[in-house]
Amino acid sequence: MISAEDLILVTDLYELTMAQAYWAHGMTGLATFSLFVRELPPERGFLVAAGLEDVLRFLEGFRFSPEALAYLESTGIFSRAFLETLADLRFTGDVWAVPEGTLVFANEPILEITAPILQAQIAETYVIHQIHLQTMIATKAARCVAAARGRALVDFALRRTHGVDAGLKVARCTYLVGFQATSNVLAGRRYGIPITGTMAHSFIMAFEEEEEAFRAFAETFPERAIFLIDTYDTLEGARKAARVAQEMARKGQRLLGVRLDSGDLLALSREVRRILDEAGLREVRILASGGLDEYRIAALLEAGAPIDAFGVGTRMGVSEDAPWLDMVYKLVAYEGRPARKRSPGKASLPGPKQVFRFYAEDGQMQEDVLALREETVPGGMPLLEKVMEGGRLLRPHPPLAILRERFQKEFRRLPERYKALRNAPRYPVRLSPALASLTNALTVRRGELGEG
Amino acid sequence: MISAEDLILVTDLYELTMAQAYWAHGMTGLATFSLFVRELPPERGFLVAAGLEDVLRFLEGFRFSPEALAYLESTGIFSRAFLETLADLRFTGDVWAVPEGTLVFANEPILEITAPILQAQIAETYVIHQIHLQTMIATKAARCVAAARGRALVDFALRRTHGVDAGLKVARCTYLVGFQATSNVLAGRRYGIPITGTMAHSFIMAFEEEEEAFRAFAETFPERAIFLIDTYDTLEGARKAARVAQEMARKGQRLLGVRLDSGDLLALSREVRRILDEAGLREVRILASGGLDEYRIAALLEAGAPIDAFGVGTRMGVSEDAPWLDMVYKLVAYEGRPARKRSPGKASLPGPKQVFRFYAEDGQMQEDVLALREETVPGGMPLLEKVMEGGRLLRPHPPLAILRERFQKEFRRLPERYKALRNAPRYPVRLSPALASLTNALTVRRGELGEG
Repeated sequence: MISAEDLILVTDLYELTMAQAYWAHGMTGLATFSLFVRELPPERGFLVAAGLEDVLRFLEGFRFSPEALAYLESTGIFSRAFLETLADLRFTGDVWAVPEGTLVFANEPILEITAPILQAQIAETYVIHQIHLQTMIATKAARCVAAARGRALVDFALRRTHGVDAGLKVARCTYLVGFQATSNVLAGRRYGIPITGTMAHSFIMAFEEEEEAFRAFAETFPERAIFLIDTYDTLEGARKAARVAQEMARKGQRLLGVRLDSGDLLALSREVRRILDEAGLREVRILASGGLDEYRIAALLEAGAPIDAFGVGTRMGVSEDAPWLDMVYKLVAYEGRPARKRSPGKASLPGPKQVFRFYAEDGQMQEDVLALREETVPGGMPLLEKVMEGGRLLRPHPPLAILRERFQKEFRRLPERYKALRNAPRYPVRLSPALASLTNALTVRRGELGEG
Repeated sequence: MISAEDLILVTDLYELTMAQAYWAHGMTGLATFSLFVRELPPERGFLVAAGLEDVLRFLEGFRFSPEALAYLESTGIFSRAFLETLADLRFTGDVWAVPEGTLVFANEPILEITAPILQAQIAETYVIHQIHLQTMIATKAARCVAAARGRALVDFALRRTHGVDAGLKVARCTYLVGFQATSNVLAGRRYGIPITGTMAHSFIMAFEEEEEAFRAFAETFPERAIFLIDTYDTLEGARKAARVAQEMARKGQRLLGVRLDSGDLLALSREVRRILDEAGLREVRILASGGLDEYRIAALLEAGAPIDAFGVGTRMGVSEDAPWLDMVYKLVAYEGRPARKRSPGKASLPGPKQVFRFYAEDGQMQEDVLALREETVPGGMPLLEKVMEGGRLLRPHPPLAILRERFQKEFRRLPERYKALRNAPRYPVRLSPALASLTNALTVRRGELGEG
């Protein structure tokens, strides 16, 4: 379907036409591009950076295959001499980036590439494409984690994610931020994520009687059955599930749980809990699903719903309330000359950068200082690390389990107020004096940074 | 990255556990599943069905590779005997579907699969996944086409679509509904769609002077240059573009256009048009981009903006105002017995179905009748066709160019009021008496169909 070789063509045509124009004019100088989000969506108090591993793999494998070149030639747009240049092109640049799982805010670079302009320009589309998707999803999923206050979360989004790549990345990013498992089998294989699932309404409907369906499933999976109880009547379904669970208990088996997928989840979870408890099934857990996201999870838990785990699907997997981020990849320096764009509402800050994070004495995040890369800002922890040099990776990709652990630690250091689901205050990000004065020197106008 | 063999694992785990339970209980009967959208999002008056070709290719190649089976075995969830059954499993069912590009409405099946339940169940996730994505995007893009009133549209969405698969499918579906081209090079290669592009701000910024950048690009691409003029000051950029265009004209070359990407596109397009016209450059076109969607295109054209073409990106490519559809794949019959779910707000209609479309004398669409498949509804045009029988395709996949032409014809037959961008009236879909009475016989309760 999509081979690693195809990725070089996951690009906007203009990257390649610009590249030919640079080449034709002998422009081979080093360019630095900075990837950042200009402004956070209204409902986002923080972002969780993700997608770096895919970008680094792409840069390592950066080459035009003979088939790709043959297609480009067939378009009639490019000169043969330029296509020969492309045939030999490899990525030889440096990459600075924040580790995946790092919390970032508006205008803070997630990644910076310094490379001959031809390479850095051609990389643009795929670099944005992957870090945009994964950062958006990791952020949305982290909000669900915050809302769930320690309850288990599982990724049920696959069927309505936007395509196969998104389905995989949603599973990856939800696990990165602390989900326990995914329903996505391919993601289980690819990333080593635990896979999980219950049953669909069709399973119940394929049997004459609901109770018979429960019994059949329990016979096949006595160790891992979770019954879906809302196909016809949820409370009746709960009573049938309880009967089958009692039969299982007599055989020394244990029903893991029941799933609610429609209706008033608060009222139903209470009544179902009562039915299960009265049947002596206190250990049978209640899993809720169906239209869930961080807002609904928070509301259910605030109301005291006795729900033990949430299956989170579509609304999370498409980041429904913010299905895109204003993420851009901007030229900030060419041949040592700082560059900045001044389009209204879309201006950018010049020069390669570093972010310095300050923590309070209790270990909580306090503020960030956005600085030029060569600056030192005493007491601040630099967030961007050099991860690639001369096109070579400087360290292996951290395993997902390590990133997951790291994220959990970092997320605890973000003060709760910035995790508010709505109207979170703006986390303080200051410009260093040197960056501020360089920006001014390149004629800032009021409101240009979209801060007004 | 993702091979055709991997697609069988693009599935929720529960499809496979249910399959093992069916198998263990000797349930090999024929099941019919129906794929439809329960309710349209508030801002949608119609849907454009798309994604069938990918689903049919998937069903043709439906098999578990040794690697897939080895992974499933490693999970410890499945019995060896069941995995041996999976090893031999092929899709041997029938598929009825509406052609891609067909206009459909709530509760109308887009596709129905009749197959041994094991196969039909395992196909669920991928079938929803592809038709959901492509129908959502084709619909959003068709709204842009309606808003653009004949102006050219190009797909610029790639960088912020949700992953590589989505990027490809957005290009495919926008072209299907009438966009002229895409910026996505891989989509150009894969689908034979014309590719197009202009230049980025980084290109301008890599040069000391904006005008120098225009001149350099024109030298390299004298036949296909479109200058981006908003990097520093749009009107100044327009004047520089005009000067370079006049130089080009003296050499017998022609500047194709200029692109506006920020600011007040209405005011700027007027002033830029004036600058170009006064420079004798009436044939230089104005392309607008930046945050566009059907709403903004309609507003610009209503206000009389002299914009010739629109580059439509992120908001269309993620279907921002409706980033998912309530699309489901429901068991409607098992072993000849009609089945229906009755969960509140999620009830479904029983039995295999057909949709009959009625046209008025002037050729405009008038109403649809949703009927049982074996019914004949005189005067109505049946929309679902049998496209696969016993696992074999009954006809080659229609070329995209044919689907595109077909869509344009069909879209003209949809009365304008249903194309309203907001508050479109509900297109009339009646149940046939036979379907209504079967539904009643299976105890409909008021409000169950989510129609209330």
